[in-house]
Amino acid sequence: MKTVYTDKHKLRDAKIEIHEGGLVAPFECPRRAEIILERIMETGLGEVVAPDDFGLDPVLAVHDAGFVEFLRTCADEWAAAGFGGEAIANCWPTRTMNSPHIPRFIEGKIGYYALACETTISVGTYEAAVASKDVALTATALVMNGERAAFGLCRPPGHHAASDQFGGYCFLNNAAIAAQYARDTGAQRVALIDLDFHHGNGTQQIFYDRDDVLFLSIHGDPMDAFPHFLGHADETGTGAGQGFNVNYPLPPDTPYAVWKECLDQALARIADYAPDLLIVSLGLDTYEHDPISFFKLQSEDYTDCGRTLAGLGLPTVFVLEGGYAVEEVGVNTVNVLQGFDEAAS
Amino acid sequence: MKTVYTDKHKLRDAKIEIHEGGLVAPFECPRRAEIILERIMETGLGEVVAPDDFGLDPVLAVHDAGFVEFLRTCADEWAAAGFGGEAIANCWPTRTMNSPHIPRFIEGKIGYYALACETTISVGTYEAAVASKDVALTATALVMNGERAAFGLCRPPGHHAASDQFGGYCFLNNAAIAAQYARDTGAQRVALIDLDFHHGNGTQQIFYDRDDVLFLSIHGDPMDAFPHFLGHADETGTGAGQGFNVNYPLPPDTPYAVWKECLDQALARIADYAPDLLIVSLGLDTYEHDPISFFKLQSEDYTDCGRTLAGLGLPTVFVLEGGYAVEEVGVNTVNVLQGFDEAAS
Ligand SMILES: [Zn+2]
Ligand SMILES: [Zn+2]
Repeated sequence: MKTVYTDKHKLRDAKIEIHEGGLVAPFECPRRAEIILERIMETGLGEVVAPDDFGLDPVLAVHDAGFVEFLRTCADEWAAAGFGGEAIANCWPTRTMNSPHIPRFIEGKIGYYALACETTISVGTYEAAVASKDVALTATALVMNGERAAFGLCRPPGHHAASDQFGGYCFLNNAAIAAQYARDTGAQRVALIDLDFHHGNGTQQIFYDRDDVLFLSIHGDPMDAFPHFLGHADETGTGAGQGFNVNYPLPPDTPYAVWKECLDQALARIADYAPDLLIVSLGLDTYEHDPISFFKLQSEDYTDCGRTLAGLGLPTVFVLEGGYAVEEVGVNTVNVLQGFDEAAS
Repeated sequence: MKTVYTDKHKLRDAKIEIHEGGLVAPFECPRRAEIILERIMETGLGEVVAPDDFGLDPVLAVHDAGFVEFLRTCADEWAAAGFGGEAIANCWPTRTMNSPHIPRFIEGKIGYYALACETTISVGTYEAAVASKDVALTATALVMNGERAAFGLCRPPGHHAASDQFGGYCFLNNAAIAAQYARDTGAQRVALIDLDFHHGNGTQQIFYDRDDVLFLSIHGDPMDAFPHFLGHADETGTGAGQGFNVNYPLPPDTPYAVWKECLDQALARIADYAPDLLIVSLGLDTYEHDPISFFKLQSEDYTDCGRTLAGLGLPTVFVLEGGYAVEEVGVNTVNVLQGFDEAAS
């Protein structure tokens, strides 16, 4: 399959992350995308193409305009306030502080638009996020125009980004933007399966009241794993979306055999839904040696996962999400895509 | 007046705070209390007495039991998870992630119970917070038993702590615990005025639906100042508490003359309420040289403030909150208390 890639992802190059009570170098780093691209070249997976520019309309179809403007101006406002380094939220509207007013000062504004504070906003972050959604949109357009599958090598990732909040290394929700774009260009029903170790809270929130985008996520139980405050099995959708949100929270040390059972259940649900398009939020942090996750998938399991996904027989867009075992992320990613291609051909 | 003090406050001795995009030494530090105590000794303000142990009942009268247990066990759970250093929240339940489930793992649990992440939980924090509420309670008991006024030299401060959330250097809400204790030991109506630079969001939240505790706060506009998500003028109470919550948000560079007009309005409202007891959340970060605030009060203004408070003629408990211009915090604190004593005698 074709891969969509641009080196504009390198504009997202934060130097710090709050982790386990201190500041560390971010797990979500430019090297991740480079090593995946290298593996794609090395294995001859398929052509690598540059993204087209889709503008902001597809973004504003799922994200709040004030939020997008905040992302665009945050780094400048932070610097203008005289603050050094990268922008970090340090307080936020909680259940006991729920004023609807959006603060004027950047210290408050960033808290309003944040859902986690480990993720800073550094100079270039917005530009990289915009390029990343174009990668996802270009891959989606390829498939909407007849390709069996395509891979959007997105960086930064997107699935934690909600309609008006960033966090968990995510700023714009690439997969959600792609799903909405598919809906707006001819797909009647879109299924979106999130295979990242972490729950795709942003994607869930964006489509929670809708039945035209089926969302399913297999992930670390939020009782134990980030993002901690969404992703339970009892979250099944609301209003028209009731029954169109499916979560599979799994405990520490889950091996592939157990994970695969959930995948099979999810794919049965997707087959029943009969979508026009499948979007896969492809995170590789389910890997046994991922430094911030707790599943036990092995490299060869990803090939089997790709084969299994192909079995649905659906036009499929892969959108990169997480995966922080950097040296192995290229092999694991391409294993999924090769497994898919082999089974699909 | 008498001062209640214990050196157990030194058990709260965090080494880091997230500030303006980096880690700094905490502004809320043990030296603050020491320098105030020194100034009290030096000026002969009055006797310094040790607190009595009131146990947890008065705490549980305003705080959630799960929250208090979390504070007690957090530092141990953090260490048991293998995390180094002090416990810092890095994600939290927001408007887009609002599951009612409380995470099992400490990384999630601390986010559930946090309303800001600049404030770490270090070993000893809980013990210091417990001692601090005993300081406030002892001062309150002195006044309930006939003293005209008393000063609880509380550290850590309390006014940001909500019924089940910590943050802004606060863990247990000393002033709210004191107000409830006064209600439970004979006061029919309590007025609580918060003069700290920052809005007393925790105190507001705890009494928001009640008319037996009148809450008033003069503070930096939350559009511009921490805690950013509560403290607007349109927050006036709910249910039986409607009309019993009064906020005076003020802009950057507010001088004493303007601040004093709000104080006069607030005291008129208190006189009208005719409470049995006045509790003053006394923060000195309204000072012109405070490093994290933006009002312009000068040292002599604090004397005038104390005199003005005495004019109400009410039994009065002073509870220390913030104030981070450490070298001047002793003079400014004692100026309020001396001004009060002079006018009251
Ligand atoms: Zn992930
Ligand atoms: Zn303050």
